[in-house]
Amino acid sequence: MPSAIILLSGGLDSATTAAIAQSQGFELHALSFDYGQRHKYELAAAERVAKAIGVKQHVTMRIDLAAFGGSALTAAIAVPKNRSESEMDSGIPITYVPARNTVFLSFALGLAEVTGAADIFIGVNAVDYSGYPDCRPEYIAAFEQLANLATKAGVEGTMRFTIHTPLIALTKAEIICRGLELGVDYGLTHSCYDPDRSGHACGKCDACLLRIRGFRDAGVEDPTAYS
Amino acid sequence: MPSAIILLSGGLDSATTAAIAQSQGFELHALSFDYGQRHKYELAAAERVAKAIGVKQHVTMRIDLAAFGGSALTAAIAVPKNRSESEMDSGIPITYVPARNTVFLSFALGLAEVTGAADIFIGVNAVDYSGYPDCRPEYIAAFEQLANLATKAGVEGTMRFTIHTPLIALTKAEIICRGLELGVDYGLTHSCYDPDRSGHACGKCDACLLRIRGFRDAGVEDPTAYS
Repeated sequence: MPSAIILLSGGLDSATTAAIAQSQGFELHALSFDYGQRHKYELAAAERVAKAIGVKQHVTMRIDLAAFGGSALTAAIAVPKNRSESEMDSGIPITYVPARNTVFLSFALGLAEVTGAADIFIGVNAVDYSGYPDCRPEYIAAFEQLANLATKAGVEGTMRFTIHTPLIALTKAEIICRGLELGVDYGLTHSCYDPDRSGHACGKCDACLLRIRGFRDAGVEDPTAYS
Repeated sequence: MPSAIILLSGGLDSATTAAIAQSQGFELHALSFDYGQRHKYELAAAERVAKAIGVKQHVTMRIDLAAFGGSALTAAIAVPKNRSESEMDSGIPITYVPARNTVFLSFALGLAEVTGAADIFIGVNAVDYSGYPDCRPEYIAAFEQLANLATKAGVEGTMRFTIHTPLIALTKAEIICRGLELGVDYGLTHSCYDPDRSGHACGKCDACLLRIRGFRDAGVEDPTAYS
């Protein structure tokens, strides 16, 4: 059974991506990041998801992206609420974390080389992607090229790294339908950027609005507890 | 005065690269990594160098590459000693740390975007590079392309990121001569992979051998205290 790395945030997208990777026959090494984000609920969700699906290994890497600041997800900047679809579709939001996916994929590449896993799965999505530059196909293609130049395994030709983005062309509703087919329990996942102290989702940030719209469009009940 | 990021390990190469960046008129944000390496002497050297040259900011980022293992620099694997030049020239050594420069450059990119610095300096070297794949020009070119696809600033066109590698085509002797012209105090730097408990360089690992050979070829006295 070949191994693959899954970047597991604990959100809806990464949980679905993990299920897709498993359905393709991969044994998973899950990698999560405690990166100075505003809350730890998504890390708890990542642990729940990793346990529920059964991974070979779950590494949570501590990195201090907050030392750089520059994002509403890591610095003392308010998370935008109740934005309209057109507002969400226009430009890169303040919740963008500089170079985040590049940092995440770099660590995934290191873990991949060490564990002998040539396949890396990431749940980026270019349809409902909230305008993040590091969720686009051209970015992923550039990283894949880099990965094969950067590594001993790539240069020596013993491994050919592939970055898998099975959600990249799906809408949120399509992602949810695919996940439900594969038995994903979305009650275990966490999407909200700004939950209350009990961990309940706000229902108003971009992540909540995209999630709510996704379940609505899929015609499926959202198991999330909103505050 | 434009700002630049300098990846500062505390070694001879990064200290020289910092001096070159300053000579080109850049104000420096230095970035070092406490990445689970075998010893902290190079971090102390990075602090000394940053202080001596006068940087605007020095960030030391803690990351746990040792959690992955897979290298003599981070795992319980012996550092090779007394290798001949032909042994050093053949293949990628065990001191290779999987994806290390990719991880380092990713953080540098995040800091660059947050601080508005479009220029990143890294002291990689393709001549005496010890066979590391992530020190080659084609790797650096791929990362630069990635950087401009990965970031808000790159996509919106407000910044065009450049990865500067002023040492890439220089021999160790040429690096030392250039640094001495610019006033670098190599007595502040640390190159050894495996120093003794007092921090004295071993004189036998690849890094020491390349350093010793460099000073010899440059016809300059090596200020290093070898054990």
